[in-house]
Amino acid sequence: MRTIFWDDCVKLIDQTLLPDRFEVIKCKRVEELADAIKRLAVRGAPALEAAGGYGIALAAYERDFAEVGELKEHIRKCAELLASTRPTAVNLFYGIERVLSAAMQGENVEEVKLLALSEAEKIASEDVERNRQMGKHGAKLLKDGFTVLTYCNAGRLATVDWGTALGVIRSAVEEGKKIKVIACETRPLNQGSRLTAWELMQDGIDVTLITDSMAGIVMQKGLVDCAIVGADRIVRDAVFNKIGTYTVAVLAKEHSIPFYVAAPETTFDWGKEAKDVVIEERSREELIYCNIKCKRSLIAPTDVGVFNPAFDSTPLNYVSALITEKGVIYPPYDENVPKALGF
Amino acid sequence: MRTIFWDDCVKLIDQTLLPDRFEVIKCKRVEELADAIKRLAVRGAPALEAAGGYGIALAAYERDFAEVGELKEHIRKCAELLASTRPTAVNLFYGIERVLSAAMQGENVEEVKLLALSEAEKIASEDVERNRQMGKHGAKLLKDGFTVLTYCNAGRLATVDWGTALGVIRSAVEEGKKIKVIACETRPLNQGSRLTAWELMQDGIDVTLITDSMAGIVMQKGLVDCAIVGADRIVRDAVFNKIGTYTVAVLAKEHSIPFYVAAPETTFDWGKEAKDVVIEERSREELIYCNIKCKRSLIAPTDVGVFNPAFDSTPLNYVSALITEKGVIYPPYDENVPKALGF
Repeated sequence: MRTIFWDDCVKLIDQTLLPDRFEVIKCKRVEELADAIKRLAVRGAPALEAAGGYGIALAAYERDFAEVGELKEHIRKCAELLASTRPTAVNLFYGIERVLSAAMQGENVEEVKLLALSEAEKIASEDVERNRQMGKHGAKLLKDGFTVLTYCNAGRLATVDWGTALGVIRSAVEEGKKIKVIACETRPLNQGSRLTAWELMQDGIDVTLITDSMAGIVMQKGLVDCAIVGADRIVRDAVFNKIGTYTVAVLAKEHSIPFYVAAPETTFDWGKEAKDVVIEERSREELIYCNIKCKRSLIAPTDVGVFNPAFDSTPLNYVSALITEKGVIYPPYDENVPKALGF
Repeated sequence: MRTIFWDDCVKLIDQTLLPDRFEVIKCKRVEELADAIKRLAVRGAPALEAAGGYGIALAAYERDFAEVGELKEHIRKCAELLASTRPTAVNLFYGIERVLSAAMQGENVEEVKLLALSEAEKIASEDVERNRQMGKHGAKLLKDGFTVLTYCNAGRLATVDWGTALGVIRSAVEEGKKIKVIACETRPLNQGSRLTAWELMQDGIDVTLITDSMAGIVMQKGLVDCAIVGADRIVRDAVFNKIGTYTVAVLAKEHSIPFYVAAPETTFDWGKEAKDVVIEERSREELIYCNIKCKRSLIAPTDVGVFNPAFDSTPLNYVSALITEKGVIYPPYDENVPKALGF
């Protein structure tokens, strides 16, 4: 099942309720979808790209317009509303822009609607397709019987379907290999325990949950054959991903365990270096309360100083291979990334 | 202020309420103290040693006995009750046994009471004294302006006073050095965020809280001058300490940051090796709910598989020095530990 899809309106899995409750919410108005994006009911770069695209389609369908100019005017306003929900989500803007451009080609109301919806569906399908390709390439790295350690959620829930890091695992399982997964809980927001554990269990894939602090002991005990993570951005000398990824990479190196990064071509920002990227710091409350919705779960003094970066950067020399929809890329990356991706 | 002390009865800081509430509870009956130990109101090996000792003193004082034989019989029963609270806490048994032996020397009721209380007070004072010594030796390793990363709680709350790893920091601060501390929250039970952050703030020591997954980034950014942790047991080839310690040690090595272990002589079990030690696994609920008291904080599917070891082992070759009350011990440990501690 897709994380986000069109069914006369935009439907999506409300990720804020997982693993407590599985609920597909219907967004019949653009305002509802904007709200869902804002409160992180849908998250993950590829999933947000699709959300932006479907948002424009929804703008075209949510009301009846007699005149094409009025419809286009309405769509443009909706595009602004959607873009304002997550000001730094590049993929969201990309999805909005792409469907907006397509819709603007329409010469009458019906054409605008059809163009918008078909472009949005294309974005979603392309995401599934590239994850499938990535999975097929990456699965070659996983032998039957492997145990794979993963971090955060680079799965179905972060994409439209299949996933990046978890897509590689799914592809290997689909080929008939027995794969076990060790999922790090991923503090402070627990995407690993809330989302990765949940979605792997849905697929009947063997998953064991550990705290991030246990990544060392499981490698020391020889329980891990390789680590696979996703990426938020890949620059010329480093991979930016969820805070804690770098710690996993260092541990993998120390134990001579391959450390793989699975990410689509759109994640590469090859013109930049790690020093050009500013890492966003998030709110202190994330470390003071566990699960912010339940304020009673106080786990630190309310006035303690906190450092809470959202991402860290892992130098590329810790990365054994990059798994993309165009194939698996090995070092030297300087040479092989431009060659594989045609930069 | 001491974590546990005698004031006509046994008083102790209820650690289960921190950092929410600071409360000193009075145990006027041995049953009350046994209950406090069982529900982890008092924890940490040295603190439990004192608790065991004070428990026997409390047994001698809680009721009036006309006959010394009856009193001794009562004390023996109380010793059994206290020992049954935490079946694997060696230090607890040691405290009980030591005060029990002293009390049994008494020839009349008054003498038994006085011997029990004075021996219990001696255990507590010795702990403070050895932590002070450890702090004095360890402080030499900390330069003015250092930022020290620590893990779990090896502080005042785990001992009677001053602490082991945090005692070293306190001693350096007392000498007038400016020391900053980075405290890892220490999942799954958050002793770092709940206890270490709290007790350092009480002393006005600059502390910044991070998730365990951020230990990598703070070292990568050059924010850490050294790491100091405590120990539950030190064998001939490894240090056993709270789960996650090994990950910190690997990260420290990768960044060429000194990794120190502060622990009293009683922690050494030099006749054993890492392979002889069985690591206790704890309940799965600790990873499924954050802060078990608030069951609403579900952070994982309730039926997910979980690996939850309480400790990990850090090979001694990751340890830059061992800080003890007898001095700082450097490698080769094979040679220098027996020399320093007189094994």
